[in-house]
Amino acid sequence: MEPVFALGLHVSRAAGNLVAQIYNQLSKAILQGRLAAGTAIPSSRLLAMHLNVSRNTVLQAYARLHSEGLLISHAGSKTLVADVTTTLLTSATASNLVTGIIPLWQNTTLFAQPGPSPITFNFSIGLADTTLFPFESWRRAINRQYRKMETRSMEPGHPAGQPLLRKMIAKFISQSRAVSCNPENIFICSGAQQAYVLLAQLFIKPGETGFAIESPGYPMARRAFAAAGARVFDVPVDEEGLIVDAIPPEVKIVFVTPTHQFPTSVPMSIARRTALLKLAKQRDMIIIEDDYDSEFRIGSQPIDALQTLDSEGRVFYVGTFSKCMFFDIRTGFIAAPEWAIPFLASARQAQDWRNPLVTQLALAEFMQNGELRRHISRMNRVYEQRYNAIVAAVNKYARGMLTPGIIRAGVHLTLNLHQDYPAQEACANALQQGIKIHCGNEFSVTDKIPNQLMLGLGRIAQNNIDHAIKQLVSCIVENK
Amino acid sequence: MEPVFALGLHVSRAAGNLVAQIYNQLSKAILQGRLAAGTAIPSSRLLAMHLNVSRNTVLQAYARLHSEGLLISHAGSKTLVADVTTTLLTSATASNLVTGIIPLWQNTTLFAQPGPSPITFNFSIGLADTTLFPFESWRRAINRQYRKMETRSMEPGHPAGQPLLRKMIAKFISQSRAVSCNPENIFICSGAQQAYVLLAQLFIKPGETGFAIESPGYPMARRAFAAAGARVFDVPVDEEGLIVDAIPPEVKIVFVTPTHQFPTSVPMSIARRTALLKLAKQRDMIIIEDDYDSEFRIGSQPIDALQTLDSEGRVFYVGTFSKCMFFDIRTGFIAAPEWAIPFLASARQAQDWRNPLVTQLALAEFMQNGELRRHISRMNRVYEQRYNAIVAAVNKYARGMLTPGIIRAGVHLTLNLHQDYPAQEACANALQQGIKIHCGNEFSVTDKIPNQLMLGLGRIAQNNIDHAIKQLVSCIVENK
Repeated sequence: MEPVFALGLHVSRAAGNLVAQIYNQLSKAILQGRLAAGTAIPSSRLLAMHLNVSRNTVLQAYARLHSEGLLISHAGSKTLVADVTTTLLTSATASNLVTGIIPLWQNTTLFAQPGPSPITFNFSIGLADTTLFPFESWRRAINRQYRKMETRSMEPGHPAGQPLLRKMIAKFISQSRAVSCNPENIFICSGAQQAYVLLAQLFIKPGETGFAIESPGYPMARRAFAAAGARVFDVPVDEEGLIVDAIPPEVKIVFVTPTHQFPTSVPMSIARRTALLKLAKQRDMIIIEDDYDSEFRIGSQPIDALQTLDSEGRVFYVGTFSKCMFFDIRTGFIAAPEWAIPFLASARQAQDWRNPLVTQLALAEFMQNGELRRHISRMNRVYEQRYNAIVAAVNKYARGMLTPGIIRAGVHLTLNLHQDYPAQEACANALQQGIKIHCGNEFSVTDKIPNQLMLGLGRIAQNNIDHAIKQLVSCIVENK
Repeated sequence: MEPVFALGLHVSRAAGNLVAQIYNQLSKAILQGRLAAGTAIPSSRLLAMHLNVSRNTVLQAYARLHSEGLLISHAGSKTLVADVTTTLLTSATASNLVTGIIPLWQNTTLFAQPGPSPITFNFSIGLADTTLFPFESWRRAINRQYRKMETRSMEPGHPAGQPLLRKMIAKFISQSRAVSCNPENIFICSGAQQAYVLLAQLFIKPGETGFAIESPGYPMARRAFAAAGARVFDVPVDEEGLIVDAIPPEVKIVFVTPTHQFPTSVPMSIARRTALLKLAKQRDMIIIEDDYDSEFRIGSQPIDALQTLDSEGRVFYVGTFSKCMFFDIRTGFIAAPEWAIPFLASARQAQDWRNPLVTQLALAEFMQNGELRRHISRMNRVYEQRYNAIVAAVNKYARGMLTPGIIRAGVHLTLNLHQDYPAQEACANALQQGIKIHCGNEFSVTDKIPNQLMLGLGRIAQNNIDHAIKQLVSCIVENK
């Protein structure tokens, strides 16, 4: 039978240009392979009758298909569908096109989805305990903002963030972290990760700019700067934090986590802090301070931000609400010198414009009402209890094998492991027993890694801790 | 008097290491300038007495401050605060550090905040009319998702997006835009702008990869690819859309807006579409189709997506919910070949991880319930009425001076202006009279721009249109 009938070709005078309608349907069918190469198409007379249009209309459509190589004339008078066979590109065939930075990372599965094995005791790091978050009052704040928004057309917000939120954040970090800043220094972004991306856009000249990061260190910060084309230098860390003397002279940007080194947890000593600031001045460097998890203090020795000591405006301070609120809020910030704000705004617009207004204003309200502060102090007690329970259980079950690291802040702790027990093996064996823990190997590009375990405090129930540590210790010992 | 007293130095045995406490407070005071250079500090004996600590404790703290150059010994026995005077970096002094891509854009003020002059008639482009959006049921959807989230800890979501939303989007664009795709082809991101950034990360090798974009064209797409280091080629547009023959051989990635060329509004002809796909095959190119505003059809001739004709998987289709929902939702997507999804996921994680789960799931619900479809068809009528009213008013007041462009979709229209009236002047004069309109000069890097005005449909009330166009025409004529 005539293939056109099978294809259900149809035209409508109401839909305008008949030639175009016929042409469009046929060309699509040919290109999509629904009309196979070599198929004879009906004569113009027959199709015109079938569609109840003039023969000239069909001829015009056919002529266009001819001119585009979709139809070919066969010996005799037959018209056939041309061979436009194409095959879908695959990753392999497209490989010469995928030349961006991304392919380099294909084999790194960071922060992978949970695997099939069931987790009984979850010491995952980087996750807050959201079961204790006051979602009801958060929802009220969100609803209030939406209701305000309904009454008027939404105007474009400023890429640096809404003024009230900038003000609240400046106040918050001035008070809790002794960061010296005004609302004009605060730049709102979608989280710490985007902060790295934006700062890289400001400071990294691809293939040229030297960038130093702690090793072991936070791999996603490393990745953001590497993606921007930075020459990355991995600078070792010891029990005082980043070894400042080891920063190579090519470096112009230094990334540090002074409050709570990631992943070793050590606070950077005051000597190193002043040495780093001094070196920054000497060599004209910029410092990026990631002050993650610093809201949660452990022990009685609070430690200020590095930015507090900076009198030149060389420190760009990065913070996030992922832990003290919840990850889904997708809100973070940079406390930056005022001159840098328009640069950051320009970079942000080209990335994804700005944060949602509703979330920004709801968060500002939440901070203004003191709700954030109340939640943080509640969670501070919760996390400190968990921390203390882990330390107690470690001292009870694993003396000589595991030693808790020095820690002053955060939502995870480190346990130094006796050299007889390699941390990587301990992690793998623990996972087999349903215990999710981490080790430094996940966060280092070099082999010189302290033999440490890392235990997150966000997902483990207080009353499970003793049992979990007991089981962890026994599975490390057994698999030795 | 002794400066230490004025500084309110204090120590606490409960807070641990006394040497560190003294050292920390003094070093901070010196670095922050609260202890001026040259100030004599109290003798160790005096301070020890004042703080009620051993003299040795104070001596240790002083020794450390000495070793770090914060204190100097003066002739005699006096110890003075060293000169650590620093001055804040300024944009000028930091200019040798700001070497990233951003400074290049400092002088371009795209999509600036509204200026001081009052706008009576707002024909701004790129903005949806949110006053008619069903925010009440949207809020209900958001609340439902938050309530679900409260009952359990939030797990990390997949960077490609939540499965239900991917399914709903695949269904939506298959039906409304004839885009051939499955849920596995959908990658969720924060909007069209982020889609460009991610695709640039996949395909652009800095300094090498050739990238073609329509001229005039969408400047923020151009910026995203330029930022990634693409060699940008601006390819002219005529009344059939992108001039495919003018794409230089170096080009590997082509960016097009076939449904509704930005900013000229012309739909790309079928001939050009097939020519572009053919050329892409010949030269092994990737095509990025930005199908913005295509949900809103104008007239009776709907036009399919370019992706529909693509049988090789060379077209990456970009869509957004900024117009059919509202900008603040910060949600867009790429319909991509399945092999590309892991690359995009890897790129997304390094940018900002993922979209908020709550928004994703609320949007999926909104689509599943048919609410999005109902809102779109309502707004389609609203925008088409506004479009028709503008065309009617133009024909009434500006025959021979303004001619409406061909348009089949979108939330803005173009008016071709008689050559006697330069569009840029018309825009400036209109703004002085409180009428906000746009012209092609804002969106082109070359001088070859059609003499066109652009009028957005999102912020102008139906019953103001006749008067607004009348006034627009008179102010163009008067200022001639």
